[in-house]
Amino acid sequence: MQRMPHNPQIDQLIKMLARLPGLGPRSARRAALHLIKKKETLLQPLTLALSNTAENIKICSNCYNIDTSNPCFICCDPQRDQATLIVVEDVSDLWALERAGVLYAKYHVLGGCLAPLDGLGPDDLNIGGLLARLKERQIKEIILAMNATVEGQTTEHYLTKTLGEMGVKISRLAHGVPIGGELDYLDDGTLAQALRARTFF
Amino acid sequence: MQRMPHNPQIDQLIKMLARLPGLGPRSARRAALHLIKKKETLLQPLTLALSNTAENIKICSNCYNIDTSNPCFICCDPQRDQATLIVVEDVSDLWALERAGVLYAKYHVLGGCLAPLDGLGPDDLNIGGLLARLKERQIKEIILAMNATVEGQTTEHYLTKTLGEMGVKISRLAHGVPIGGELDYLDDGTLAQALRARTFF
Repeated sequence: MQRMPHNPQIDQLIKMLARLPGLGPRSARRAALHLIKKKETLLQPLTLALSNTAENIKICSNCYNIDTSNPCFICCDPQRDQATLIVVEDVSDLWALERAGVLYAKYHVLGGCLAPLDGLGPDDLNIGGLLARLKERQIKEIILAMNATVEGQTTEHYLTKTLGEMGVKISRLAHGVPIGGELDYLDDGTLAQALRARTFF
Repeated sequence: MQRMPHNPQIDQLIKMLARLPGLGPRSARRAALHLIKKKETLLQPLTLALSNTAENIKICSNCYNIDTSNPCFICCDPQRDQATLIVVEDVSDLWALERAGVLYAKYHVLGGCLAPLDGLGPDDLNIGGLLARLKERQIKEIILAMNATVEGQTTEHYLTKTLGEMGVKISRLAHGVPIGGELDYLDDGTLAQALRARTFF
């Protein structure tokens, strides 16, 4: 006989936690218990952080980044290179590039990539906004920073064609052996690309 | 140059999420973005579930289970076997046994196990409450359901000695090959125990 081992409120908390990416039913139960045990130091601060986020986070209507202000702090930053626009699939990619901290430019978040099998076409991405930004003529180079997946590369191909007539330079990230990578552990596709795109001394 | 890729509120949310067991910095970032994207269907319900939990969850002063009522629903259940008490380390173990749904008995949560190396002695566990419950003379059997770890077994050994003079039957969980387990994949200790505790036809 299967009985409910805990009361409905704890059950509801576990169910919600289990919907976070990276947490399954078992780890959601562990997380719920951990939260209950650390009420002052974790449960309450997390609740506050969540309600602050729910109240204050907005999507930037210019670049589709998330921030507490609209336009976001990146769009408002006058010290950034105004002529270079890095196009990414998702906000997490923007964060990753910012952590790398190499280019101090502007961004445009597409909000996904073309995936015809999942029914995601160009109209589902923030491409209209991208074209509008290009028409302002301030941007001179677009860096396509899609994931090196089939969908990401399809999106890059589509954007290259669509943006080709706008008179801007278009580049994309280099593909090849990742830093620290050992050839023996790499897939054939990466090795083939690294050979094809080899650089000469 | 390392810059903060997102604003302080999102950073605070990520920090709090990263303190959940099972989530590291990377998965906490993914979880935060997921929450922000699913504001109505996940972020707000999770916030509600957390604040409900913070407000209403109490520790049962009888068995140290967690519930919205004190005494907890297990302690208040008149249909359970009042003569059998299952002693567990943690609430998660109580949940696991309730999910198995074999015995319909009462519980006592120790709140940990003896770990001298971590400075955890008998006074840090809910053993006083356990002795007090036994003095009421209603309980006839105690099932020690500790983890099969060194600390769990130390705790079982200590409890067997401490409770030995209380005039109750004391039993512990069987140890051996887990159901579905393949001998080839089991550790030597489990195999040795399974051999020693073999049952005869």
